Amino acid sequence: MQSFKEISSVQNSLVKKVVLLKEKSRERKKTGLFIIEGLRELQLALRANFEIECVLFQPQLCEEKRLEQLLSKTGTSTEIITVTNEVYLKMAHRGTTEGVLVIAKSRSHTLDTFVLKTNNPLILVAEAPEKPGNIGALLRTADAANLDGVIIANPITDLYNPNIIRSSVGCVFTNNLAMGSTEEILGFLKQNNIKIYCAALTASINYLNADFKGANAIVVGTEATGLSKSWLDQSHQNIIIPMEGEIDSMNVSVSAGILIFEAKRQRT
Amino acid sequence: MQSFKEISSVQNSLVKKVVLLKEKSRERKKTGLFIIEGLRELQLALRANFEIECVLFQPQLCEEKRLEQLLSKTGTSTEIITVTNEVYLKMAHRGTTEGVLVIAKSRSHTLDTFVLKTNNPLILVAEAPEKPGNIGALLRTADAANLDGVIIANPITDLYNPNIIRSSVGCVFTNNLAMGSTEEILGFLKQNNIKIYCAALTASINYLNADFKGANAIVVGTEATGLSKSWLDQSHQNIIIPMEGEIDSMNVSVSAGILIFEAKRQRT
Repeated sequence: MQSFKEISSVQNSLVKKVVLLKEKSRERKKTGLFIIEGLRELQLALRANFEIECVLFQPQLCEEKRLEQLLSKTGTSTEIITVTNEVYLKMAHRGTTEGVLVIAKSRSHTLDTFVLKTNNPLILVAEAPEKPGNIGALLRTADAANLDGVIIANPITDLYNPNIIRSSVGCVFTNNLAMGSTEEILGFLKQNNIKIYCAALTASINYLNADFKGANAIVVGTEATGLSKSWLDQSHQNIIIPMEGEIDSMNVSVSAGILIFEAKRQRT
Repeated sequence: MQSFKEISSVQNSLVKKVVLLKEKSRERKKTGLFIIEGLRELQLALRANFEIECVLFQPQLCEEKRLEQLLSKTGTSTEIITVTNEVYLKMAHRGTTEGVLVIAKSRSHTLDTFVLKTNNPLILVAEAPEKPGNIGALLRTADAANLDGVIIANPITDLYNPNIIRSSVGCVFTNNLAMGSTEEILGFLKQNNIKIYCAALTASINYLNADFKGANAIVVGTEATGLSKSWLDQSHQNIIIPMEGEIDSMNVSVSAGILIFEAKRQRT
């Protein structure tokens, strides 16, 4: 492999920048940049044409051949830097991310640039999801189901949080994603004749009795408070997964998975 | 409320014992004790007749009336102690666990005491699940589906890990649970004429085409390596949720939820 600039000091300003971008949502918002760790995640981001500003890799850890292949797909303006193991460990979340971190440019994911894949769409809307692990699992499910899109209403956690990227196994890059206020999203769904199915405890029918064949959005709220009134007011049909146990809720990403795949079953 | 012994020093040996029981699996195994945090979790444990050795509560945080109601259900040998806020914060995982922690006696969950609820059982078997969040989500799903039982094969993480108790929202107490080696479990399933459906990538049929109406066990492996050969060799039918996206796996607790609720759908 050709020779690159090397960083050997953990005090280096770029190293500090990487750490800041990983830890601070505000820094990500301010700069429009975020960090991707791992070859698999990088591969999915490149396939989705995310712009890479800088690649940092630890030559002893990183599988050189795979990295070279990937780098051939980045633009010529991408800076490539090698780092010592000490520097790598300072930046990396875990020793298992295959020796590579990149600084990438984030996207705004506004609704006005959101294009549905088909004309009989199945969409997932998640209102104010908070836990990165749950958001990651939702995005993996949405990828597996090849949904037309995922929309986050009133986002609390930014999508480029490293824990979301990791728990989504890179599906934050593979999905057709948008974010917006509940009002904006309600407007979008109405304009596109997409029916709203709210996962809710009240005034609900068993999800198995709902008709998911048309253009529709499955809408899930938080585990703590459920969906806000704005969603329930505009619901075409509230749906529920009957709970037969001692507690009255499942993990939100599991519930969403069950609803999405029941819709898929009906649509095939 | 009557007056109780108070602990005001974080150096107190009982406080150290609580911290050790929370942090160290080895300590839990050695003593047969574990920690429950939160009123809701405590309530579910008491309902399942778990023995409580000692209750520690912070009177300013703990809803006195609910605690009194719960305590009326514990045995007379249960020691009740109040703690100062400083001591509480030293022991508690988060300030939101309602001011109460208890030391409880664990169970062994061996297969020889495992009794199925019905004679046409639906069981979940998870082989070597590792992440507490996933195990917690699996247990919540099993509770919601009112499964006949959940069996953990070759357990890696002990069930009384505080993160499992928390992420299961106490469903570690509501489920009919057993643990054992793969060999023991295979023997148990054979003896009870329970068919094995392995979630697997190879030699699989679409899960929607499987017949889940009989006595059966849905068996899931780890996300990293899937199921071991021993399970696949004994499988009645391998099943797969078709993946239509760019990556080839979902979160294990989401996949299990989809499979379990498809089985439920077929059985109602």
